[in-house]
Amino acid sequence: MIEIGVRKGNDPMSSLSEKAAQNLARVREKRPLVHSITNAVTMNFTANVLLAMGASAIMAHARSEVEETATIADALVLNVGTLSEERTGAMIRAGKKYNDWNKPVILDPVGAGASTYRTFAARKILRAVRIGIIRGNASEILSLLGDTDGSKGVDTAHPVEAAVDAARILADDIGAPVAVTGPVDTIVDGSAGIRILNGHPLMRYVTGFGCAATVAIGAFAVVDPDLLTAAATALACFGVAGEVAGERAAGPGSFAAAFLDALYSLKPEELETRCRMEA
Amino acid sequence: MIEIGVRKGNDPMSSLSEKAAQNLARVREKRPLVHSITNAVTMNFTANVLLAMGASAIMAHARSEVEETATIADALVLNVGTLSEERTGAMIRAGKKYNDWNKPVILDPVGAGASTYRTFAARKILRAVRIGIIRGNASEILSLLGDTDGSKGVDTAHPVEAAVDAARILADDIGAPVAVTGPVDTIVDGSAGIRILNGHPLMRYVTGFGCAATVAIGAFAVVDPDLLTAAATALACFGVAGEVAGERAAGPGSFAAAFLDALYSLKPEELETRCRMEA
Amino acid sequence: MIEIGVRKGNDPMSSLSEKAAQNLARVREKRPLVHSITNAVTMNFTANVLLAMGASAIMAHARSEVEETATIADALVLNVGTLSEERTGAMIRAGKKYNDWNKPVILDPVGAGASTYRTFAARKILRAVRIGIIRGNASEILSLLGDTDGSKGVDTAHPVEAAVDAARILADDIGAPVAVTGPVDTIVDGSAGIRILNGHPLMRYVTGFGCAATVAIGAFAVVDPDLLTAAATALACFGVAGEVAGERAAGPGSFAAAFLDALYSLKPEELETRCRMEA
Repeated sequence: MIEIGVRKGNDPMSSLSEKAAQNLARVREKRPLVHSITNAVTMNFTANVLLAMGASAIMAHARSEVEETATIADALVLNVGTLSEERTGAMIRAGKKYNDWNKPVILDPVGAGASTYRTFAARKILRAVRIGIIRGNASEILSLLGDTDGSKGVDTAHPVEAAVDAARILADDIGAPVAVTGPVDTIVDGSAGIRILNGHPLMRYVTGFGCAATVAIGAFAVVDPDLLTAAATALACFGVAGEVAGERAAGPGSFAAAFLDALYSLKPEELETRCRMEA
Repeated sequence: MIEIGVRKGNDPMSSLSEKAAQNLARVREKRPLVHSITNAVTMNFTANVLLAMGASAIMAHARSEVEETATIADALVLNVGTLSEERTGAMIRAGKKYNDWNKPVILDPVGAGASTYRTFAARKILRAVRIGIIRGNASEILSLLGDTDGSKGVDTAHPVEAAVDAARILADDIGAPVAVTGPVDTIVDGSAGIRILNGHPLMRYVTGFGCAATVAIGAFAVVDPDLLTAAATALACFGVAGEVAGERAAGPGSFAAAFLDALYSLKPEELETRCRMEA
Repeated sequence: MIEIGVRKGNDPMSSLSEKAAQNLARVREKRPLVHSITNAVTMNFTANVLLAMGASAIMAHARSEVEETATIADALVLNVGTLSEERTGAMIRAGKKYNDWNKPVILDPVGAGASTYRTFAARKILRAVRIGIIRGNASEILSLLGDTDGSKGVDTAHPVEAAVDAARILADDIGAPVAVTGPVDTIVDGSAGIRILNGHPLMRYVTGFGCAATVAIGAFAVVDPDLLTAAATALACFGVAGEVAGERAAGPGSFAAAFLDALYSLKPEELETRCRMEA
């Protein structure tokens, strides 16, 4: 992992933890409005995650309204789960508008690798829109570079480590950080990398935790122009809330509710103390 | 606020509380079937709200089935969130059929004001269909009268009070009550008004509480032909369930579950005692 | 009810209970990937049910990806709730591919009977695709045989018993078992039948329990080639988890979360002890 000390000062980890706290406080203060064009399975949960963390959510995917929404929202999340031809067009149209306004666009390539259709759609979006951050699981990230072997639906068939090199190539190619999430999240850009050690095993037993991590990154990207640290601190915030929820949950059903409670109640200073990031 | 004593007898508040209890008891007895043509984000939650309160839910939006559904369902809720051109057509087609059958049609202009597209769709529906009740937040209600300034996505940018005059003009124009919901819900028609003081601050941290209030109004409108009191008592029921849930919840995740529990368990006599309405 | 002793050995019930335990253990081990083309209301809950029980879920409905998904997924669930013309086409296309691969296809005729459109769509699918198991409530099953009288939306207007003869005719006609679910679930094929006595009354106060039972059957059908016992043991597993959840729940909101917890925690030996099936 490349040191990020050069960019972050003498004590990168302490400054990252401080930044996590700062970013969460700023989200609560600014209440960024995150616009999602997203899949039907997890949109309720992702909207609730944004509200619980103190941000605001709008889902709008009609061609007639996505560009106008770019004028009021602060960030755009494109999620290719349960895609349709029409929706891909709306995503590109919207993405270009957010690019014009210099507002961050985050891509979540759900199921890329599992379906050629989604892989191609994600690549098409990458060619047409300037993406600020990509977040996916290992199989999804690998598929964006052409490795379509071995994905198991929307769950990953690869460990995070297997996709880190691909993530770095991709990050270099698009000039933006790429986050590979899993038991240990890893975010890389062309020259740096951060690993997040927070999280909880029950996260993979609830649908939408990946999608929800992406919208959380969207909210943090509004308050932190360094998109590498925006992504890392959002994932740390997510992981810490997962750990708090895991202490209270009896299984995935109570975990999902406890997670929203934890995200809502998480204090910036608690995040600073509990987050574990490695550069 | 205009007195509603003329319509409700000498002790309007006591009779409103009684009516709330009566309406809830009737919903449990009749189990009205509420048909929603609605947005993808909150449809799971709104269906669960209807079931928990003792009503029944059907979601059907295909042009080929919306008119037939009008023959079996008791009320129609039109919600313009995550709209598409096709869906607007189905809404108008369905609405006309419910008008033919003299069954109540409730409009929820989600995101009107945030997107010209949704504002225009809501207005188009208002021109084509006889709407029984409109429920929206302050920004949405203002936008229906032409004030499209300052909406923040699907959340309101205006306090309830700022929209009461607009609500009254709108109510007068369409000849039906308009409910502006927020910290204190206000329902007006051409000559009367009711304020609901019940509710809980966590409601705005869960997506779909506005949409769910609208379907609850739909269920109450089936059992109470006075649509002003139908809307007011439904919102009081909603607010009391929110207060009960708030006593048990640790945050928005546990609040949403506790709210469904409270709605399911709420006894008509408890509603009568706890509801706080002002004419 | 016809004895299934011939097929199951001398002590059919004990062997059925053992099979329930065995099937659940196999689901946890194999983690079958269940592909759903399904309605928008309940897709979040059904995905969570699959994850909680130890299976894996993919929702994909675009014509461009449903056939490819057949190459990676283990079973297909077709659910006609919130249908559209386009989606029916995708269902048939996908179903034929799963037939080619000899992977099980399960049909859930949600709302058949309530809407001619859905009834016809379900029948069209039955003609075009070799269905392995049908699961519906009594009204839905009756409607597939031409009785479209008396359905109340997506809830049943008939008791389970009223549909058992129709289920047997249908099962005989399509050469596959048919499950009629309700207070006592009944599964029949041409020559045998099983009744499941497990379950909890709160299940009907949460939307999607029917749809979720269908996806659970899909997962069990991957590990048990006898589709009659696959369906019966999946429903028994579902019913036992419902009973465990009912012991902890204060209403439908906490019940849904407790159900996912119970499904996640249910041990095969506990299922074997608690399941109550009658041949």
